[in-house]
Amino acid sequence: MVRVKMSTDLAAKRPKLEPSLPEDKVDWKKKKADVKESKKQRKEAKLIKQLDKQIELESAEKAKHEQSQDTKGRAYTVTVALPGSVLDNAQSTELRTYLAGQIARACVVFCVDEIVVFDEYGEDVKTVEGEFKGVGKKGQACIQLARILQYLECPQYLRKWFFPKHQDLQYAGLLNPLDSPHHMRIDDESAYREGIVLDRPNKPGKGSLVNCGMRKEVRIDKQLQSGLRVTVKLNKKQSDESKMCKGAVVAPHLPRTEGGLYWGYSVRLASCLSAVFTESPYEDGYDLTIGTSERGNNMDQSTLSPFKHLLVVFGGLQGLEASVDTDQNLEVTDPSVLFDLYLNTCPDQGSRTIRTEEAILVSMAGLRQKITAAFSDVSSGSLKI
Amino acid sequence: MVRVKMSTDLAAKRPKLEPSLPEDKVDWKKKKADVKESKKQRKEAKLIKQLDKQIELESAEKAKHEQSQDTKGRAYTVTVALPGSVLDNAQSTELRTYLAGQIARACVVFCVDEIVVFDEYGEDVKTVEGEFKGVGKKGQACIQLARILQYLECPQYLRKWFFPKHQDLQYAGLLNPLDSPHHMRIDDESAYREGIVLDRPNKPGKGSLVNCGMRKEVRIDKQLQSGLRVTVKLNKKQSDESKMCKGAVVAPHLPRTEGGLYWGYSVRLASCLSAVFTESPYEDGYDLTIGTSERGNNMDQSTLSPFKHLLVVFGGLQGLEASVDTDQNLEVTDPSVLFDLYLNTCPDQGSRTIRTEEAILVSMAGLRQKITAAFSDVSSGSLKI
Ligand SMILES: C[S@@+](CC[C@H](N)C(=O)[O-])C[C@H]1O[C@@H](n2cnc3c(N)ncnc32)[C@H](O)[C@@H]1O
Ligand SMILES: C[S@@+](CC[C@H](N)C(=O)[O-])C[C@H]1O[C@@H](n2cnc3c(N)ncnc32)[C@H](O)[C@@H]1O
Repeated sequence: MVRVKMSTDLAAKRPKLEPSLPEDKVDWKKKKADVKESKKQRKEAKLIKQLDKQIELESAEKAKHEQSQDTKGRAYTVTVALPGSVLDNAQSTELRTYLAGQIARACVVFCVDEIVVFDEYGEDVKTVEGEFKGVGKKGQACIQLARILQYLECPQYLRKWFFPKHQDLQYAGLLNPLDSPHHMRIDDESAYREGIVLDRPNKPGKGSLVNCGMRKEVRIDKQLQSGLRVTVKLNKKQSDESKMCKGAVVAPHLPRTEGGLYWGYSVRLASCLSAVFTESPYEDGYDLTIGTSERGNNMDQSTLSPFKHLLVVFGGLQGLEASVDTDQNLEVTDPSVLFDLYLNTCPDQGSRTIRTEEAILVSMAGLRQKITAAFSDVSSGSLKI
Repeated sequence: MVRVKMSTDLAAKRPKLEPSLPEDKVDWKKKKADVKESKKQRKEAKLIKQLDKQIELESAEKAKHEQSQDTKGRAYTVTVALPGSVLDNAQSTELRTYLAGQIARACVVFCVDEIVVFDEYGEDVKTVEGEFKGVGKKGQACIQLARILQYLECPQYLRKWFFPKHQDLQYAGLLNPLDSPHHMRIDDESAYREGIVLDRPNKPGKGSLVNCGMRKEVRIDKQLQSGLRVTVKLNKKQSDESKMCKGAVVAPHLPRTEGGLYWGYSVRLASCLSAVFTESPYEDGYDLTIGTSERGNNMDQSTLSPFKHLLVVFGGLQGLEASVDTDQNLEVTDPSVLFDLYLNTCPDQGSRTIRTEEAILVSMAGLRQKITAAFSDVSSGSLKI
């Protein structure tokens, strides 16, 4: 599944300007130079004008963004990472699928933005593309987990395009729906919608048509390759008579950062535990990392400070120790040194072991309160994405 | 399944004494009366001695109990109630069983002492005894849930006695074990063990033999009916040569109140929501009751005060409103008035609905912190069971 990444960073397009130097002597050489200079100045003036306009636009955008921050946008992200091997802990092929669904739901309940499935056994699987050999009782766990997570995240009306009948989704009928805000029914009203760019002849000057699961198709502002999954911001005013709706393609994070909506998760495969950290899609990586273990510190005694990108890592049947052991990039044996915090999220647990799918709900429930507390603390200042 | 209830309340057995009145006149009538009186006094002296001993024992017991309170005992209990109808929300007969197992595990992780399965539809089922018509896709949900909960709570080594092959446990092989402290392996050492009274001829003056899942059988201090499930406190000193161990039958709450151990849950069926409250096994009922709902108050803004018996109630597919509606004993329609607290335990949930089995983990994780806080507050004083 491809997802268009849109850059909202206007600064990246800003032209670089050299300061102009004053000149005195007048001769033919100077005349030529003058003409060149005045040309240069006109060019520069034009560029400065353009720049001003861009700065204006930029700060308007920024103000709008900050305003939405203040009102309802969410600037930070939460990532959950877990080993795909957890699936091998299921007792039947049906329950393997069901377990994947439990993980998806646990993450959605707590508004997780990214799920990283890492390989505990170093089989080095980096993509869900390529041939998949079907749902077995063992093995291929990372790919299978990632695929089911992606399937569930995809709005129902888009699944027929992105997930044609497939062996690994054999028991998809047993999965409980995620029921997240971006899974809309045909007549639901929303400022944003997920859609697929349709394969229609593009008229010059007109944007592509997108199916957003509504009664009408949506004409977007850009021409994009058909088959792409896009996030569309629908225009506030729509004409009732028109045969189609109008909208603009936006970055997938906009519903969250601007609208404060939970907009599903992205799925990433990591070939080992260390790759969870090093291959972060966020430019500066994760700025708060939490490892979970019954041997961690009592979470009741810890608080969180505000963050941009939180990473919470879970272990499999053998805990994070096993993931550290098999990772050839890691020389440590004690997982706790890898994280900012290493937390026991369920002190005095009544069962000798908490299963990973349970630990996600339990840990995120405990962390939710602490995240809320971190960001409701006014003294901590505002955060940018 | 029968479970012996032991009373540790010595006061209940204390003889009632009348104050003796002084007498003056001496005659034959008096002589007779004197003899009677001295007999009476001897009797009374004996009784007073007995009483003193009992008071001594009692205060020693109390002191021991209070000490264990200070050190590791847990005086309070936690009850979870939910409608059996949640099983009807499963998509296959296997998943129906699995769901029951999820509920059992969620309760065990958070040391729940009692699970009440109530009937949302007023079918008025009060016992798991009697004929059960097997695992269907729908219906009989309360009995089935209660039976699977009981099955899972029972230590493995006792199951062959209490749970002979049964249709309703058809998919028991799919259930994840509870792995609670009272589920011991054969060589595990523990001060307490669950056992079954064996059907052996009772020698006069000797207690019954109990199978506690150890290599040796246990001779207890009492003669009890065979087939009873009992909690045994093993004597500290055991002779290696002896063919059997020695122990005393104790109240099932002792491992918790004295040893601070989580000792599994009891299961109760309630014919409707109101019966959850009125048929409490605790003398004075539940002294703190919490209803859960996405329409409840934000739990982050609430604290708990110390309690003796906490009750946390969950709704089914349609929430607690549905349970209130079908309960003919309840005239209210707003469930919130039934509880001391009506809490949203997952503010800003990313899914439109949280399933009951998920809500148990999520809610109890949030409440765990608040319970800990309530009891770690020194100013709140000590609590008695
Ligand atoms: C089945 S448990 C691992 C048990 C393993 N025997 C161990 O000792 O770590 C799977 C995962 O659940 C999470 N987990 C289990 N209990 C936890 C607790 N009390 N606090 C935090 N995380 C826990 C951890 O991420 C753990 O790696
Ligand atoms: C599927 S939900 C019920 C949903 C139902 N539509 C309603 O509006 O209540 C099942 C149960 O999970 C619990 N639950 C779900 N979300 C909750 C939340 N945010 N806070 C507390 N309990 C919740 C409640 O006990 C609820 O009755």
